[in-house]
Amino acid sequence: MAMALARTPPVGAHELPARRYARLAEPFRLYRGGVIEQPVVAYECWGRLNDARDNTVLLFTGLSPSAHAASSAADPKPGWWESMIGDGRPIDTRRFHVVCVNSLGSPFGSSSPVSIDPRTQRSCGISFPELAVEDIAAAGHAALATLGIERVAAVVGPSLGGMTVLAYCVQFPETVGSLVTISGAAHANPFAIALRSLQREMVRSDPAWRGGNYEPGRGPRLGLRLARKLGTITYRSAAEWEQRFGRQRVPATAGLSGDFRPQFEVEAYLEHQALRFADTFDANCYLQLSRAMDQFDLSDHGGGSLAGAFAKFARRPALVLGVETDMLFPIDQQREIADHLRAAGSPVEFHAFPSLQGHDAFLADLARFEPAIGGFFAGIRTAG
Amino acid sequence: MAMALARTPPVGAHELPARRYARLAEPFRLYRGGVIEQPVVAYECWGRLNDARDNTVLLFTGLSPSAHAASSAADPKPGWWESMIGDGRPIDTRRFHVVCVNSLGSPFGSSSPVSIDPRTQRSCGISFPELAVEDIAAAGHAALATLGIERVAAVVGPSLGGMTVLAYCVQFPETVGSLVTISGAAHANPFAIALRSLQREMVRSDPAWRGGNYEPGRGPRLGLRLARKLGTITYRSAAEWEQRFGRQRVPATAGLSGDFRPQFEVEAYLEHQALRFADTFDANCYLQLSRAMDQFDLSDHGGGSLAGAFAKFARRPALVLGVETDMLFPIDQQREIADHLRAAGSPVEFHAFPSLQGHDAFLADLARFEPAIGGFFAGIRTAG
Repeated sequence: MAMALARTPPVGAHELPARRYARLAEPFRLYRGGVIEQPVVAYECWGRLNDARDNTVLLFTGLSPSAHAASSAADPKPGWWESMIGDGRPIDTRRFHVVCVNSLGSPFGSSSPVSIDPRTQRSCGISFPELAVEDIAAAGHAALATLGIERVAAVVGPSLGGMTVLAYCVQFPETVGSLVTISGAAHANPFAIALRSLQREMVRSDPAWRGGNYEPGRGPRLGLRLARKLGTITYRSAAEWEQRFGRQRVPATAGLSGDFRPQFEVEAYLEHQALRFADTFDANCYLQLSRAMDQFDLSDHGGGSLAGAFAKFARRPALVLGVETDMLFPIDQQREIADHLRAAGSPVEFHAFPSLQGHDAFLADLARFEPAIGGFFAGIRTAG
Repeated sequence: MAMALARTPPVGAHELPARRYARLAEPFRLYRGGVIEQPVVAYECWGRLNDARDNTVLLFTGLSPSAHAASSAADPKPGWWESMIGDGRPIDTRRFHVVCVNSLGSPFGSSSPVSIDPRTQRSCGISFPELAVEDIAAAGHAALATLGIERVAAVVGPSLGGMTVLAYCVQFPETVGSLVTISGAAHANPFAIALRSLQREMVRSDPAWRGGNYEPGRGPRLGLRLARKLGTITYRSAAEWEQRFGRQRVPATAGLSGDFRPQFEVEAYLEHQALRFADTFDANCYLQLSRAMDQFDLSDHGGGSLAGAFAKFARRPALVLGVETDMLFPIDQQREIADHLRAAGSPVEFHAFPSLQGHDAFLADLARFEPAIGGFFAGIRTAG
């Protein structure tokens, strides 16, 4: 059986004063059979747990971000959902205790392929066991347990985080007060699988991947760059790019048409996004998280029936948000989630936003997302 | 000034009995400044030129195919538009003389990076001068001139061929009786540019590309495979794949989830398509044709104004076909062509088909395309 160990805290953690680490009970058994020893989940918190311990909002992330969803006194750097979380913000930290967990398998503090195995003093790398979305959810649940939190007022997540919300609800239904899925999916469709499969092949095809056995920090940077370019293309929409870039050219390369170098602004934008990702993300972590998204199918928890799976967490109030221009987690998949939740007796608020920003709209079109999320949280009753 | 030479006919042509070669007048000056010496265009013909020489239909292709659009007595192998061209078919060879030209820059017989330079007995490769869509059109025009054909009843093309139709009309307006553009574009949009730019980067990133200086047949097969997978993803639609593949798995790899090998049917389909392309297409040809599509902008012929460019070939009857699920040449770009043609006084028949097959619908959803094209050609008057 595959195993992996993790040291807590990882190297460099002193630079991240808001990041905390939850040591989970051992061994942490994975959904597809592997085991993680010395399992750890990195997380950040905002607001305060009330005396009734019923005001926690558990936030899962998309594929790329860390647990740094918002700034705090300890770390004033803006987070990836800065305007959503805080005093007077849609997820109001005067009322809610917000916990954002770094996904298991992600390189930003939780147990993952970059974790150091204390027995070998080397990173786990390709020997990290197969990760499932169910494991990300279970690690978040276990992290809350270390904080003495048994129930959550809401579990929330966009993209991969939206999948994780469903995996959480189906595994721990009695602990969930309500749920918010944003541009998620109950299962990946073949178009998204095709894109992610190609992204993984780009990474694996880079000779620097070395079958997964690269030295930390010397991995397949080219493959990650190419994969992230494809990701960036699919995270937005053609309509947005028409507005933002049109056929604008990069002035500095105007004379370079004789070779095959980038000439258009949109190409420079992709390069910038790709370099930023390749500088910070680990290839084996990327492969694990990407594959987990393809493999996820909520119907596995309902004997092959989606309705059967949704029935396991019936009657929780739910907010389902999606975007009409999302090509990766298309709006029909959001509607599918909303329909199944309603069929299972949940009061569901569903919005299909006409945002131009595609899958990334939850980060970019906050004028639509903030009121919907704020309104939903205002309606959640807590003791505090 | 960059130059390239081509031998006629190329090696292997004896296996293609229907393929003919037009030697063009020398030197053939390219739109962006290069020159091709000993220029040649490969083509195939169906039907007969009438005595008035006014019944020719000039057909340009998409990026990948050869001039073998349909079978004939000389070559019974089905062509890429087999059901569209022939006796009693939508483009009826009892009435029309159909000439399909292999695009300049394509590896299937016309002057291209795989052409042999007789001075060195080596292929032109990376030294082939920069190709433009305008050159593909001009080479087609020059090929007809070698046949004594001055005017065409219609110029027709899908995808890159649709761009080529517009480049043809704007350069040779007095010679065009009518036009048919299918899933083409008056200029590439930034989404399509981003995808093609990434495809070219995949090819160039393959070490086997060697800066374009690979030995013929020993080029960047991996890069071409990856690029073609991305192409295949964008040529179809998510909705079609949901129907065709869903989450079906490849049975033989059911036990392989522990590594990162393909597991879903859609991945096997992509691999099949990609291998077929990498087996037959040359990397430098691909780079040239792909870049030409990004660079094409019909408004360059109207002093920066699309309306000005369309005004140069006003009042020709036109058929404009597009598909609502096309993500590469989206339906708005088809509507743009139709609107500009109408504004320039053309009688325009425009169809936005709801086909599921995306950009490739002109090859796959013939039940919609055949009647539209047949009806349009039935209305074209010729002397014969």
